[in-house]
Amino acid sequence: MRVGFVGLGTMGGAMAANAARAGFDVSAWNRTPGRAADLEELGVAVRDSAAAVAAGSDIVITIVSDTPDVEAVLFGPGGVAEGAAAGTLVVDMSTISPSATRAFAERLGEGGVSMLDGPVSGGSEGAKKGTLSIFVGGDAADLERARPVLESLGTTITHVGPIGAGQAVKAVNQVILAGTYIGVAEGIVLALKAGLDVEQVVSALSGGAAQSWVLTNRTGRMVDNDYPLGFKVSLHRKDLGIALSMARELGAALPVSALVEAVEAGLIGQGHGDDDMSAVARSIRALSGLEA
Amino acid sequence: MRVGFVGLGTMGGAMAANAARAGFDVSAWNRTPGRAADLEELGVAVRDSAAAVAAGSDIVITIVSDTPDVEAVLFGPGGVAEGAAAGTLVVDMSTISPSATRAFAERLGEGGVSMLDGPVSGGSEGAKKGTLSIFVGGDAADLERARPVLESLGTTITHVGPIGAGQAVKAVNQVILAGTYIGVAEGIVLALKAGLDVEQVVSALSGGAAQSWVLTNRTGRMVDNDYPLGFKVSLHRKDLGIALSMARELGAALPVSALVEAVEAGLIGQGHGDDDMSAVARSIRALSGLEA
Repeated sequence: MRVGFVGLGTMGGAMAANAARAGFDVSAWNRTPGRAADLEELGVAVRDSAAAVAAGSDIVITIVSDTPDVEAVLFGPGGVAEGAAAGTLVVDMSTISPSATRAFAERLGEGGVSMLDGPVSGGSEGAKKGTLSIFVGGDAADLERARPVLESLGTTITHVGPIGAGQAVKAVNQVILAGTYIGVAEGIVLALKAGLDVEQVVSALSGGAAQSWVLTNRTGRMVDNDYPLGFKVSLHRKDLGIALSMARELGAALPVSALVEAVEAGLIGQGHGDDDMSAVARSIRALSGLEA
Repeated sequence: MRVGFVGLGTMGGAMAANAARAGFDVSAWNRTPGRAADLEELGVAVRDSAAAVAAGSDIVITIVSDTPDVEAVLFGPGGVAEGAAAGTLVVDMSTISPSATRAFAERLGEGGVSMLDGPVSGGSEGAKKGTLSIFVGGDAADLERARPVLESLGTTITHVGPIGAGQAVKAVNQVILAGTYIGVAEGIVLALKAGLDVEQVVSALSGGAAQSWVLTNRTGRMVDNDYPLGFKVSLHRKDLGIALSMARELGAALPVSALVEAVEAGLIGQGHGDDDMSAVARSIRALSGLEA
């Protein structure tokens, strides 16, 4: 099967490599050239436009930064819609707006091109190891066409509903992360202020109702006040912005998510956008008179 | 060993029963009489004051509602301090203020009575099954004296520091719960508004960074909008009030915990104080136009 990748950032580059290693006939394009040297060694054919990738692919995977970027690579000059033959399947694995996703699918459908949304969780580590979780929205038959490729990229592939539903699930994920991270950050800062042995506290609490992936995996960074990646503050803020827009469209009010979005905007303004998102602890530390 | 229990509520009653079943010589007193019929069948001697319990005990466990209740059963008329001989060990397993705990320990020490704080997590179910987690503050030698009894009550006993440290760890636990519960509630309400299959969403997200005990165990209640116990909103609000007082004393600012405390106060005012604390989802539902 001929698989095209549009977007060769940290996520897309690692995913294209895994698809090539799995034996798919992979071509690729990236807005910024020069990202693809390692991929060419794996046999990936680097094209000079998204349209050229689409013209030579049965399935085109787009994985770029945000809603306007997806719109540009799909419908802009030299975009996927220009090159894709009828019957091509686009799988957008970026994290973008669910309502924009539905609109993009409709526009592609006018040219006989079908679309799935398949945003992921698992971060750059999951992309490298091929252990991503993929939340798929769209027609079941399209998912079956894409499944062999998706299985080269992730370990958990869940069909969550019609087109846009994958993005909605991803938004739910980011909202839950917001509350969990800020709750753990408040707890760790309180523990630090109280002079407790935080490692022991985390161990004592991990057997109970406070247990979470964040508690187990991210409290060390909050204590050290050093936040290596992981998942960037700037990306989580972008995703939370999508979730909050979606919430507005649906009439949902999410006060803690809105607060965390503001906290993250503050961090980005202070130059911490490339920190892991556990850096929300910086803001609680700052409020509490600890080094931030 | 002679073990006294002061406070036979949902927690204390179940714990006294477990101590009696484990073979300890147990006596008990409760402010409200008539709670002790089942305990007498297990051989528990019911006394008519906390002082009488203390006079006949090597170790006195207090487990009542809040800081003023502990003060009353320790130092009020007919209280523990009146009856306890020098050398008696008091273990307060209530959830109360860390700074008040230190003051109580000092007052007891004047009469030669030593004190540990040992608040628990695990709820009424953990109390019944003897599977509580116990966070112990105080002298290590005192903990060794109390350990056989504590092992009849819980499965994880962690010595977390000097007197008051157990309460501080419990406060950290409640702060983390606040953020985790409200984050999950916001995510579930967003999923409901988006028409997603929430059970499937929870399953898809449980393998990633959003994973938590709350996500696994409490989202069904948020979907059904029905909140059987569990752990009461009114008790979590009380505990969060302790954590926020502690934070003020230490100069820590915990904005999400403060928000959740306000949300819970609203729920209590609306008659939902006896709901499980997953009922914070009621408030997010109400903000979002869902039945609350």
